[in-house]
Parts: sequence; structure tokens; C-alpha cells
Amino acid sequence: MRYFKSDNTAAVSREILDALGAANGGTALAYGADRWSEALNGLFGKFFETEVRVFAVSSGTAANSLAIATLCPPWGTVLTHAEAHIERDECGAPEFFSGGAKLSLVGGAGAKIAAADLESRLAWFEPHVHGVQPKMLSITQATERGAVYTPAEIRALADIAHARGMSVHMDGARFANAVVAQKVSPAELSWKAGVDVLSFGVIKNGGMNAEAVVFFKPEQVGDFEFRRKRAGQLACKGRYAAVQISTYLETGLWRRNADYANRLAARLAQAAPQFLSVPCETNQVFMQLGEQRIAALSREFGFYPWGPTGSGEARFVCSWDTPEEDVDALCAALRSLS
Amino acid sequence: MRYFKSDNTAAVSREILDALGAANGGTALAYGADRWSEALNGLFGKFFETEVRVFAVSSGTAANSLAIATLCPPWGTVLTHAEAHIERDECGAPEFFSGGAKLSLVGGAGAKIAAADLESRLAWFEPHVHGVQPKMLSITQATERGAVYTPAEIRALADIAHARGMSVHMDGARFANAVVAQKVSPAELSWKAGVDVLSFGVIKNGGMNAEAVVFFKPEQVGDFEFRRKRAGQLACKGRYAAVQISTYLETGLWRRNADYANRLAARLAQAAPQFLSVPCETNQVFMQLGEQRIAALSREFGFYPWGPTGSGEARFVCSWDTPEEDVDALCAALRSLS
Amino acid sequence: MRYFKSDNTAAVSREILDALGAANGGTALAYGADRWSEALNGLFGKFFETEVRVFAVSSGTAANSLAIATLCPPWGTVLTHAEAHIERDECGAPEFFSGGAKLSLVGGAGAKIAAADLESRLAWFEPHVHGVQPKMLSITQATERGAVYTPAEIRALADIAHARGMSVHMDGARFANAVVAQKVSPAELSWKAGVDVLSFGVIKNGGMNAEAVVFFKPEQVGDFEFRRKRAGQLACKGRYAAVQISTYLETGLWRRNADYANRLAARLAQAAPQFLSVPCETNQVFMQLGEQRIAALSREFGFYPWGPTGSGEARFVCSWDTPEEDVDALCAALRSLS
Amino acid sequence: MRYFKSDNTAAVSREILDALGAANGGTALAYGADRWSEALNGLFGKFFETEVRVFAVSSGTAANSLAIATLCPPWGTVLTHAEAHIERDECGAPEFFSGGAKLSLVGGAGAKIAAADLESRLAWFEPHVHGVQPKMLSITQATERGAVYTPAEIRALADIAHARGMSVHMDGARFANAVVAQKVSPAELSWKAGVDVLSFGVIKNGGMNAEAVVFFKPEQVGDFEFRRKRAGQLACKGRYAAVQISTYLETGLWRRNADYANRLAARLAQAAPQFLSVPCETNQVFMQLGEQRIAALSREFGFYPWGPTGSGEARFVCSWDTPEEDVDALCAALRSLS
Repeated sequence: MRYFKSDNTAAVSREILDALGAANGGTALAYGADRWSEALNGLFGKFFETEVRVFAVSSGTAANSLAIATLCPPWGTVLTHAEAHIERDECGAPEFFSGGAKLSLVGGAGAKIAAADLESRLAWFEPHVHGVQPKMLSITQATERGAVYTPAEIRALADIAHARGMSVHMDGARFANAVVAQKVSPAELSWKAGVDVLSFGVIKNGGMNAEAVVFFKPEQVGDFEFRRKRAGQLACKGRYAAVQISTYLETGLWRRNADYANRLAARLAQAAPQFLSVPCETNQVFMQLGEQRIAALSREFGFYPWGPTGSGEARFVCSWDTPEEDVDALCAALRSLS
Repeated sequence: MRYFKSDNTAAVSREILDALGAANGGTALAYGADRWSEALNGLFGKFFETEVRVFAVSSGTAANSLAIATLCPPWGTVLTHAEAHIERDECGAPEFFSGGAKLSLVGGAGAKIAAADLESRLAWFEPHVHGVQPKMLSITQATERGAVYTPAEIRALADIAHARGMSVHMDGARFANAVVAQKVSPAELSWKAGVDVLSFGVIKNGGMNAEAVVFFKPEQVGDFEFRRKRAGQLACKGRYAAVQISTYLETGLWRRNADYANRLAARLAQAAPQFLSVPCETNQVFMQLGEQRIAALSREFGFYPWGPTGSGEARFVCSWDTPEEDVDALCAALRSLS
Repeated sequence: MRYFKSDNTAAVSREILDALGAANGGTALAYGADRWSEALNGLFGKFFETEVRVFAVSSGTAANSLAIATLCPPWGTVLTHAEAHIERDECGAPEFFSGGAKLSLVGGAGAKIAAADLESRLAWFEPHVHGVQPKMLSITQATERGAVYTPAEIRALADIAHARGMSVHMDGARFANAVVAQKVSPAELSWKAGVDVLSFGVIKNGGMNAEAVVFFKPEQVGDFEFRRKRAGQLACKGRYAAVQISTYLETGLWRRNADYANRLAARLAQAAPQFLSVPCETNQVFMQLGEQRIAALSREFGFYPWGPTGSGEARFVCSWDTPEEDVDALCAALRSLS
Repeated sequence: MRYFKSDNTAAVSREILDALGAANGGTALAYGADRWSEALNGLFGKFFETEVRVFAVSSGTAANSLAIATLCPPWGTVLTHAEAHIERDECGAPEFFSGGAKLSLVGGAGAKIAAADLESRLAWFEPHVHGVQPKMLSITQATERGAVYTPAEIRALADIAHARGMSVHMDGARFANAVVAQKVSPAELSWKAGVDVLSFGVIKNGGMNAEAVVFFKPEQVGDFEFRRKRAGQLACKGRYAAVQISTYLETGLWRRNADYANRLAARLAQAAPQFLSVPCETNQVFMQLGEQRIAALSREFGFYPWGPTGSGEARFVCSWDTPEEDVDALCAALRSLS
């Protein structure tokens, strides 16, 4: 079976495994007082060309939820896309971490929020105690359908949010894929466009079990560290989380891995453009194949059907370690579909 | 100023005020061990023609939220209408009481959920740990736009819910208005149609500060009483809550008051049927007047604009104590609008 | 049966019932926009001789829990007495409302916290993310064993708390009894001694179902109003809560009722001083009677055994409407015990 | 500087690092559908000689809190020692995960709970809605002061708990140290003595960032998996957590590492028995040294003072990778103290 189920099924990049071994000698103070953890603020500061505060956590769900809980009160709501990971794939984690804040959904093709749709949704909220208050916008980069927000698109959304006193969160589980796809800098795709806090993905793109939460406005960190500890997300042997993240940045792994995965996905898209249900912009490919073609492909390839039961759509994800020959095989199979 | 803002602005019916006075003699055991509280199960059993478990609380928000928290786990979701009171007017109370359960929204004219729309929304949920699980359906009777669900409509929705293992909650803040409007029995509009737990409204229709939560399946009561206490909703001088509710039932006040309010609303609707944005079925009237007519009426009448800012829609609510002459005046004003 | 179970079993004072009737005419805007609610800040300002912010809620548990949730973050802890109502009699409401803040217990005779014991308990907390942080002190006035804190005692505790950045909450379910007992002003027993926020009791001392939360530092109100709404504690017909509270203050009922109850309790204490387990300072009397005497008295009198099962202690509570003759009878019975 | 601060400062055992590398080839299904994760139930079943359900999480705090949240409702309380890790070192995580359940503290030397003290504490709870209900007992093995519970001691406590309908949780962050110290089987020290759910520690004793929650009564698993996901504790690349845990068991690492650490600690204790404040039973040594000796030792050795500020007590922890020569040096330094 050749797998295109998710970039979660990938292994860990050699650079990261080696770095874990290299960090393994002797004593290191626990709970983030080690030298790898202490270097993170500086490393990310260079990467993003601005002062930041960075915190390691064990999963993307934790990263998103802790960021949200820090900046959205229990009586607030997070405007987000109806297909967002925080809405559909985290089993209510944002609600749990935030003490019951709400997610308010906005539609849009490609799992992207359009500025006009954000405005319309916001028009429903009133500044009184009877309703929850919009306190945050959360967008995913790249989106759950592989699309990217351009710096200008982010800016337009962020301006709307900031004008309402809302902060802007970016779920960057595939942030590297989006940066590489657009040939822009990490800064241009985040704080320069108005992002306040970023869930910076490492795991899907070569990491093992560490993600980073990056605050671009240090004054917004607030009680994050208490919340992280209280959530069981402060690793006692902190060096093994920090070194994954720093290696990912320092060796350029983030770029190499994302570039590879994006290129493979582009080949899949080009093999059967007539089936694309969404343009392929990063490492995910969505195709409207119909149930019969899905069944046929499923004999040789592992992938997920997408959307509501019976929709006939399929998702194929390429990762940093997807074998070229698996892509060759899937391309051939796609081309042979009638 | 003549007020049509809400049935919340009404006073308390004389029967209830008198009953509070009559209950005021001497000692009564606290926390629901008084004779008025202990009579509630029996009284409601007769009213609904079945065995029930009834609990008094201080507000409709508390009634809804405690019912939801009892039957929906933190990792569950409540399917409800996008305009539902629990979604738009309770500042996230269901999320708070339930420990972060979600509300998943369904659209529909008249703030009513159609069976097909419920089915479509449910198709998005999958039985795995990544997503919250549909555990409850909550419908409002009469709806936030004054419409009613017929017994057959409730049954259709409840069958869908029960087939998925979901329980069915009815927000009956205006339950009496819906019963009266349809000339059916309370039983026919609740458990006989598939409702499991009902927030039984008293306050809007003549009460002071007591509502009831009615469980039609006693085995579903679960930890309700712990949750009620823990929420500060177990009145220490319980008799003054219970006697409001029992008087409301025993004197037929529920029917008289609802009937009066519904009739006044019907007169408003008949005065300017061309403006109705939703058919008037109970005690609320919604009219698409445009901003200019709203401004003109606002000089003499108190009422709320409705929907998003600038929608041009207005809501007029009649209550048990709306003066006939206020309705006469509003009818005249509506007729004179061009 | 003659009842000394609690001041919760008492009826509502005539003055309050009359005021409810007087407020019952016509329309009043909902959710606290009525004239009775809007007068509360001013009335309490006079009563306490300082600017305050006052909010009505439906129960003492709600008052305490909302005050705590407003000033103690989820990762904070409230130092309080091991016998405090918030610890033992609210089913975890402070934990629920605050999103899981902790109560950290201090011992002390008479359910009073001594300054030295507070200091010792505080010495266990360290300013790092591994432990919850002391954020609040909560004391009860009069205490759960009927004792009072003097202004000097409150000041000593408040100074310790404030020096640690903690705020000071007073559970004043029986605040009136404590004021009357000490012949001091409400101001002297609250903000002048260092109290930041007070749960101001009305129900036990003649009210029906309204208590007040009083903030002495308006800047600490924070998100209280969102939390109150979200907890189902914002009454829609707000006038009926507000008028209870304002009548209680304006008519001097608070003083008359407390004075009466305290005097009756003093008579009980004097009837059998040899049994007193705690000096009687307000309207509660605690006696170490032994199980046999408790059994004997229980045939004619309703009261609660106190402390752990089999402790042999009993509590007798007098209220504003305890009949003199019931006290005569209990005094006689106590005197006849050998 | 020679470190005795914690077993958290240790590196990862070579066996585990090698196993991570060995598991790193190719695709593995995400979220626990990999072969390493799927083998855990069987492996632990053999280890504990009974059917179990095992779940990997990223930290001991998460293990404890998820176990507690699964078996203790929000209106319940967990009886535990006043020095327990869940009380003092997890920043309120159990309260957070459980939706506000309480911890009720019991004292006792060596951070151990005595049966009589558990009984006394339980006598304070009454089966009514006013107070939280005792739902769980949580004991730590080895305790936060290095002591062990014998099978008979656990049985005595568990019998008390079970008789009250409470479940029994063991925080086994140093479970291996306790097993090795007592020369009993893992089964004898857990389910055979009455433990229902165990937080099985791996990290402190050679692991990197994975612990296990072990349910000995599969029917008690309940909604654990939803809670784990919702807490961001379901690793997407699950193999890297599972393989740490399985290697720890299969290679006997658990025993070798614990045995080594315990033996080093025993040497420290023997070097200066006159200072021991608690008998040394596992890998932690507590000494009452006084502030001056602490200051003197601190120049060369890293360790934590213990207890309230100024207590004069110190804790020294040995781990699987503490160098023998560091122990030699500390023994010499301790012997030279007067």
C-alpha cells in the first residue's frame, strides 16, 4: 500500500533524529531551563526578523488551543473557517483550553475566509453581555484544503479583526509549505501581515513531537506559561522538544522538506487536473473523483475520502518522505482513470 | 413610550404575587425540602400526563444550560439553530455549564430547523476522537422568530436525533404560547413528540424569577442536582421559586396569559400584513420595515431592530400585560405607514 | 417541631414582600435597565460611604463564586478556612465558576483564620509555574461558626494578602449580623479594613432570592458582567431582585432583623453556657452536647448535628422570624439537660 | 556543578534512543494506529499479568490529570496527600482537566497517607448536594518524599476507598523505583493491591517524553480517548511515544535504571544518616541540614531546598545517569559536614 493519507504518517527527518542524539549527553536543567530551550527566542527572532516569545508544546492541537485560551476569554468567540482544524479535528480542544469560548464559523472556498464574509459574520455580534464577543480571528496557513493566504489577504483580514479589538491567530501546522509556495519571507506571511500569534508547525514537516507557539507581541504572552504547565504541556526534559525545533530552523530543513512535499503534490495535480476540486497550492491535493474511482484507487493507495459521507471527493497528501515512486504510481493511476 | 421590546419587561401576574404572599408564613425547610417544591413532580406529572422529574432554577439561561450540561459531555456538540437563544443570547452559558461542549448550527426560515437540514449537518460528523460528537438536538418552542414546531415536525427531528444516540432538548421559554397557538396538549408538544428534556418557561409569561427543567425520562436526570447546586441555582428559600411555578400551572395562568399575548400579536400582524417577514404564530411579530419606518415608529414605541445592523427588520413582542390600548396605537401607526 | 436548622428556613420580611408588590406595576426594562437596579450603586455607595459597583445575583453561592472567578485566575488559589462555606457547602461552585481555581485551606478555631496561620500557609507557595499562585483571601463574616472578625483582624489579614498581590473577598452571607454584633459601621467592617469585594447577604436575613456582590474597587469589576450573564445569574425581570436589596438597606431591615436574631441566639447561649463549643457572637450557637442529649432534644426541636459524624456537637440558628416562644422552649430544654 | 536536582535532568537511555531510530523507517499510520502503539495493551498485559488498557501521553501531569478527569466528576473530590505532585506541582492541572473537581488533602509523614487519616478526612463529607463527593483516592508510588507504600498498605487504603465507591489512582512517576525497592511484582504493587488506574512513569527513569496511563478495569476507560485528544495529548506520530514505552518494558530498562538510581541514593543516605529527615527507600534523599550546611553544599552541588522557605531541609535525587563519581563527591561532602 502506498500512503497519501497525511503528512502525519511520515517519519522523522534524519537531521532531527541526529540532533536528538547529540543533545543526549549529560545533565540539563528541566522544564525549559536547558540551553536548547533558552535559545529558541533568539533563533525565532532571527527567523522572523523581529522580537518574539516562543514556547514549545507537544502537538498542534495544544499549540492552537493554548494560543486561543491566552487571547480569548471564556465569554469570547473565535471567528474561523467552518473547515478549520480547530473546528473539525481537535475534538473541542479550543473550547476546553479556553474555559468554554466559542468558535463562530465562516464559509469560503478552499477553506479560506474572504474579507467580506468575515465582515458579514461579525455584523451579527453586538457589544452587550447577552452574546459572546468576537475576540480572535484564526486562519490556517496553508488551509485545510491546501490553499494559501497571500500577505495582502492576511492583511485585509487582520485589519478587520484589529479594528474590532480582536487578535489574529494563524494555525501554521503547514506554515513552511505556505512560505515555500509563495516565495515570501516568514515575516511577510506572519507579523508583517498582521498575525499576532502563530502555531508554528514542525511535526508534519519532519519533526517528531514538538511544535512552537510564537507570540509576535511579547506583551500578549500573558498567562501562557501557567496555562501550558496546567495543561501538561511543559515537557520536563525540555531539551528534546527544543532541539527538534531549533534543528528544523537552523538546518533549513523547514524549507527543504516543504519544497519537496509541495513539488510532489504539484505532480499529482498535473497528472489529472480535470479532477481537481481545489487548485493545488501546497502539499495537499483534493480531487472530485466520485465513489467508483475512489474505490478503484483504494486498492493500491491509502488516502482519505473528504467531506460529508458520499461526497465523492478524495484528499492526497504528500510529505517530506513520500517516495517519488509512490507519486509516479499514483500519477499513472490517476491518468488511467476515465 | 409604549413598549414592545420583550415579554421580559412585563410585570408579575397577580396570581403569582398573591401566592408568594400566601406561602410566606412560618418556617419551611430550605433547598427544596419544602412542600411546594416537593409537589412539583406530581403537578407536572399531571400537566404532562406522564412521570417526570422537575427542578426549579432562576433563569431560562440556567435551565437550558443545566439541561445541556447534564446530557451532553464536554466533547459533544449540540445541534441547534443559528438564531437559537442558546447560541446568540446566553453569552456562552451552554459552553460554560457543559465544560466546553460545542454548539453546531443549522439554518432555516423562522428560526426553525428542517429535518433535511439537520441530516445534512449531521453528515459532517464522524465517529472518531478527532471531532466532537453530536449528542443533543436543541430546538426552541416557540422559536426565536415566533414560529412553532408541530408535533409531527418535532417527531421527525427527534427520530433523526434518537437514531444517532442524541437526546432532544426543547427550549420552552415560550412553551405556553406554542401550546395555546396550536390547540394541542402539553404532552403532544413535548415527550409524545420525542422531547427528552424541556426548559419550561414561566418568567416571560407572568412569573417573577423561576423556571423549571422537566426531564421526561427520569433516568436521564443523572447528576443534574449536583450541577444545579454547583451553579448557584439551588435556591435556599426554595418555596418562593416552587410556588411561582405551581401557581402558574394550577390556576391556568399559563394558558390565559399566553392566549392574551398571542391574540394581541395577531392583531399587530393583521394591521400590516404586507410588512411581515415571518408569519406571526405566537406573541412575537417580525416586520421588514426598513430603517426609515423603524426610525419613525421609534419615537412613540419601544422595540428592537432585529438581525444584523441595518437589516431594516423590527421585532414587536406582546406580553400578558401589554395594554390593549398600546396595541391599538401600534396598529394605527403601522396602518399609517406607507 | 420548633426549627433552629438555619436562617434559610425563615420567611421573607413583610417590608420586602410589600416592596415587591409596589414594584409590580407596568413595564420595566429587562436585565437591570430598570430604575431599581440602576439605583443600587448609589444606595450602596451611601451605605458604605464610598464609591462601589453592585450587582444582584440569585444566591450566595453565585455571589461568592462570581466574585472569586472575577479576581482569581484558573491557575490561582483562594486561601480560605477549612470550614468555609465556599469549601464545604457549595459543591465546588468556586472551582466551577473560576475554571478550576483551587481553594487552599487554613485552620483556626471558630472558623476564623489567624494572621500567623495565613502566613504559614502562604509560605508553601512558590512563584513559579509548577504551583498554583495565591491570588485571593476569602474570609466569612460572621464565620460559619458564628464568630466575627474585628476590623483590626481583617486589616491584619488583608495586609498580608495585599502584600502578596492577593485580593480580599468577604463572604458576608451574615454580614449584617456581624455589623450589629460589633457596633461598627459597614464601612469599618469592609473596605476600610481592606476588603476588596463583598458578597452581601440579604436572603438569610429577611430577603427572598437576591444577594449583592459589592466591589469596593470599581477597577476590579473586570469581566464580572459577562460572567454573571454566562452563569444564568442576570435576572431578566431585574426589578424584583433589585427592590429586595434596596428595601433591605433603605428601611433599616438589615439592622432590625440581624439584631433580633443575634439577641435570640445570645439567650440560647446564656441558657447553657457550659455546653458552648464556641463563644456565641452572632445568631448561631454551637454546643458540645454529646449524642444522647442531641437525640433527646431532637424530639422537639429541629437542628443540625455539626462536624464529622458522631462528633456530639450541635448547631442552633436563630433568624429574624424565629418565634420568641421557640427560644423560650429551647432555653428551658437546654437548662434541663444534665 | 554536580546535579542532584531531579531525575528530570537526566538524559535518555541509549536503548530508547536506539529504538526511536529503529522505528523511524517509512510510513506509520497516525494517532495510534501504528504497530508500536497497538502492541502496548498486550505488553502491559504481560507486565501486569492481567488485561489492561494502556494510553500514551506526553507528560506525567497529563497522565495524572486525564486519569482523574476520567474517573472523578466535576462535583467530586480526590483525596490525596498534602505534598502530592498533583496538589503542589501541576499548577492545578487536575482541576483543569476535570472541569473543576477538588483535591482534598490528607497529611502524613513521608508524604504517605495512613488509613486512619484517610478515614478521618472522609468523615467530613456528607452524601448531599451541598458538598463535593469523594470519588477518588490518589496516592503516589514512590511518594514525593521517596517512601513506598507496601502492597498491604495500598490494600488498606483501597478497601476504604472502594467501600465508599471511590476509585483508586496511583501516581507512578517513580513506580519502577518502588517496585525495585520492595522486590515485589508490578502486579502486587498495583491492581492486586486495589489500584484501578496507574500513571506509569517512563520519563524520569530513562524515557524522553512519553508516559502511560494504565487502566486495570477496562470498563473504567470511559471517555478517556476523547479527553486525551481534546487535551492535545494524542500524538499524531504515535509510534515515537509508543516505542519509548515498549522499549522501557521489553528491555528491562525499567528495572536496571531504577535499581541503579535507588542504590546511589542509598549510598548518600548511608553517608550521613544523622541528617535524614525521612528514611531513604528509593532514589530520593531528604536531609535536615540547616541553612548553613545547605549554603555550603550549594557551592559544588545542584539540589533543591525543600518545604517552606527557611525550613533547612534539602532534597537530593539520583537518576539512572547520575555519575558514580558525583555520588562519591557528595558522600564525601556530607561526611565532612559537622
